Amino acid sequence: MAKQAKDMQFMKAALEEAKKAYEKQEVPVGAVIVCNDIIIARAHNLTETLRDPTAHAEMQAITAASNYLGAKYLTDCKIYVTVEPCPMCAGALNWSQISELIFGTKDEKRGYSIIKSPLLHPKTKIKKGILENECSELMVRFFKARR
Amino acid sequence: MAKQAKDMQFMKAALEEAKKAYEKQEVPVGAVIVCNDIIIARAHNLTETLRDPTAHAEMQAITAASNYLGAKYLTDCKIYVTVEPCPMCAGALNWSQISELIFGTKDEKRGYSIIKSPLLHPKTKIKKGILENECSELMVRFFKARR
Repeated sequence: MAKQAKDMQFMKAALEEAKKAYEKQEVPVGAVIVCNDIIIARAHNLTETLRDPTAHAEMQAITAASNYLGAKYLTDCKIYVTVEPCPMCAGALNWSQISELIFGTKDEKRGYSIIKSPLLHPKTKIKKGILENECSELMVRFFKARR
Repeated sequence: MAKQAKDMQFMKAALEEAKKAYEKQEVPVGAVIVCNDIIIARAHNLTETLRDPTAHAEMQAITAASNYLGAKYLTDCKIYVTVEPCPMCAGALNWSQISELIFGTKDEKRGYSIIKSPLLHPKTKIKKGILENECSELMVRFFKARR
């Protein structure tokens, strides 16, 4: 499968996770971690359900993937996340030394890019804008419904 | 009890946690979270034991304290941690809106202060240098033994 088609396939899986969050009235962010083209972790934001500010999709996905691999480092893995990670999640991805971060839509207010210094690991490649409209639309719909 | 004596008492509890990490051959960092002068969460670094890069003392303490209070925000809590938190943990403390961060010794290489933009919540007060020598000595001893 072409690289672009694969990226879309895995981002669709992340979007499915984000939709699960939406249905639970959680900020709709989903993530999957992929190793050798196989999804080894799926997670969605659960901060309200668990009443835990650290329960972002990415954090849970990192913990699940590390558990699956029995390894602290995710150097051969990619993470697909529907929304740009926050500084906490970027810091966690740094510790994991993940090979690639692929995200759907930017988070202008809370994304790690608002921080001037680099938060990600220098070896982590970054790709953005995969299924951007779908990822963004879910967030816009969520916050509109809450107003 | 005077404020300074209280700070030392709670940092001692964090140091006890750090020593538990040391005994498990984990980087010796410990943390406690205090609410109304009562310790509601105790944790130490478990990244090797759990093979989870997110299992820092602070992250576990935040999750445990939120679980104890049934609340996502720790606005009436203080965290005592033996070593300056990393950017991931500072980001988590930001989400928790914790009222005060008290740490023992600086982490010149991995501490959140290396990041130029503010990572902590603007309302979080910061105090450093409580039992600095004890907190630092444990780290130095750990890394010396590993060389």
